[in-house]
Amino acid sequence: MGDSWFTIRWDADGPAVLMLDQRRLPAEAHYPRYVDVEGVARAIEDMVIRGAPAIGIAAAMGVALAVARAPAGADRDALVSGALDRLARTRPTAVNLFWALDRMRTRWASVRDESGATAALLAEAQAILEEDVAINRALGAHGAALVPDGARILTHCNAGALATGGYGTALGVIRAAVAAGKRVRVYSDETRPYLQGARLTAWELQQDGIDVTVIPDVAAAHLISRGEVDLAIVGSDRTVRNGDVANKIGTYGVALACHASTIPFYAAVPVSTLDLGLAHGGLIPIEERTPREVTHVGDRQLTPVGVGIRNPAFDVTPSRYVTAIITERGVARAPYETSLAALAQIRPVDEREKHA
Amino acid sequence: MGDSWFTIRWDADGPAVLMLDQRRLPAEAHYPRYVDVEGVARAIEDMVIRGAPAIGIAAAMGVALAVARAPAGADRDALVSGALDRLARTRPTAVNLFWALDRMRTRWASVRDESGATAALLAEAQAILEEDVAINRALGAHGAALVPDGARILTHCNAGALATGGYGTALGVIRAAVAAGKRVRVYSDETRPYLQGARLTAWELQQDGIDVTVIPDVAAAHLISRGEVDLAIVGSDRTVRNGDVANKIGTYGVALACHASTIPFYAAVPVSTLDLGLAHGGLIPIEERTPREVTHVGDRQLTPVGVGIRNPAFDVTPSRYVTAIITERGVARAPYETSLAALAQIRPVDEREKHA
Repeated sequence: MGDSWFTIRWDADGPAVLMLDQRRLPAEAHYPRYVDVEGVARAIEDMVIRGAPAIGIAAAMGVALAVARAPAGADRDALVSGALDRLARTRPTAVNLFWALDRMRTRWASVRDESGATAALLAEAQAILEEDVAINRALGAHGAALVPDGARILTHCNAGALATGGYGTALGVIRAAVAAGKRVRVYSDETRPYLQGARLTAWELQQDGIDVTVIPDVAAAHLISRGEVDLAIVGSDRTVRNGDVANKIGTYGVALACHASTIPFYAAVPVSTLDLGLAHGGLIPIEERTPREVTHVGDRQLTPVGVGIRNPAFDVTPSRYVTAIITERGVARAPYETSLAALAQIRPVDEREKHA
Repeated sequence: MGDSWFTIRWDADGPAVLMLDQRRLPAEAHYPRYVDVEGVARAIEDMVIRGAPAIGIAAAMGVALAVARAPAGADRDALVSGALDRLARTRPTAVNLFWALDRMRTRWASVRDESGATAALLAEAQAILEEDVAINRALGAHGAALVPDGARILTHCNAGALATGGYGTALGVIRAAVAAGKRVRVYSDETRPYLQGARLTAWELQQDGIDVTVIPDVAAAHLISRGEVDLAIVGSDRTVRNGDVANKIGTYGVALACHASTIPFYAAVPVSTLDLGLAHGGLIPIEERTPREVTHVGDRQLTPVGVGIRNPAFDVTPSRYVTAIITERGVARAPYETSLAALAQIRPVDEREKHA
């Protein structure tokens, strides 16, 4: 992620929040300005911005905006409370959203009577963004060690800068490999039905000058079987105790193809998305999304009126097909019950001490 | 395939050839009339009709049309010769096309001086169509025995009535199971990038009152892993000596998912598409089609301008993932070198004698 584009940014002169409108990618890079809580909330609901970390950052900035824009004499407590409620109703399933709003609520409670309360809220939102980028960079550095020079890398969906504060998880590993001087070629599954790979992953890698080729999802297994892919790396929405990885629908098929051709399949998993309370992936509920994503592209209907549609949004890759799980704290390998638990027990404070 | 629709038909009152315009499915069932060789040739080139058997039938009817529409005193030899040349240039890789044109050439050579030559050419074209349907029905009957009552069946692409003279191969098995009183539910992979599953398989099964649900290709492995599919059945463009099956891109991924969940994966393979001269699937050339199928849906561009695109049209499923190969002469199982060779040696004349 160079300086030429960004996913989300606070504009101090507004004050305002600028977000890259991902619905209009790849046709154009448009950055609408959001100047109130309602605007930010609708941007999240309407998928101007998506990806759990990015949603959390947007919501945090929305709360900061409520106070930064408060008229003189306004009841700032009520404004913050209203902002927290409104933003919590945008995407009810994204866990980062609630975690980010909780941080903002806690910070507000500790500073609301002070003169620098507005600056403190903004600093908290900015910290959420910067911590996310730092996590992605640490994850990327661990993962880059697994990428050979000249690697042809398959990825699925968009686990990139566009889904996070910047840099990305799976795409962060690719960026770190490039930064380390390795040559890579990326195959991006188009990722039906919402086409995050064709629209977003292709766009952000192209922007950063990384060689990217879009393929239909159905072509991934073929290219792998023909020896045209050296490794696959994907993100994860939730990874559970035994190492089963829930991610965008289609990920499991990529893992099967890698396994059949004995090439590595890696998942890039920030520790915040580990759910070690769940024993295995069969316990993860799978969201089904609107049929319209399958039946239409834009206004064009693809399917006959009246046929049944299934549109599961995620699938679960059993850990036996996962070569390694890359986190910001290191790389976990089977048996995952042990290795993931060990990583989860490293407290962030330990990491700071280590680097002190 | 009921009486309410058809893929291709000779209209004696024209004379003319009627074809269902598959480019306009599923939005509308439109049957343009073709009254000359050039019209038929362009219909094949422009994908009004597709599927190797259907293309062969259209070309044969195009030759018949040349003679049926010949002005009094015309050089009918030259007309037939011109028709054969023009139609051979439409789709250079479809083997059924050349086989059908050869039959028409041979028939013309034997009857051109006779008064009934026009009727003979038409009869030959009609025979090509009817033999194709008969093969599909025989294949369907063999395959239906493998389909349990209540089966939830996954299919990929369109190996249906729309790709053949009628009835279909993979979809012929499903039709035969339904005709035998079995209840079935069909999952149709949408089949990116050309969407044969979303547009054509969904349409023709819906027309025939068969329960069909369209899914994104990426959802197939997930549904299989969750126990929501009992078997998969697909067509084949070429099946070689060791039983490796070349078919529409994405088929291999379906087979891997079936194998991982130990459900049957069947290929419906007319004997005419066996290529026992090739030892294994790695020797089959894989056509790459235009990037535009991937980059656009209609006029809407999905991908960033300038990114690389790969669009292989077929893949190869290794025979170790193929539970059985269903032909019009019976069902072959591993070891396929032996079983396919045995089926190929049954001459059609033997079958006719058997039924005499």
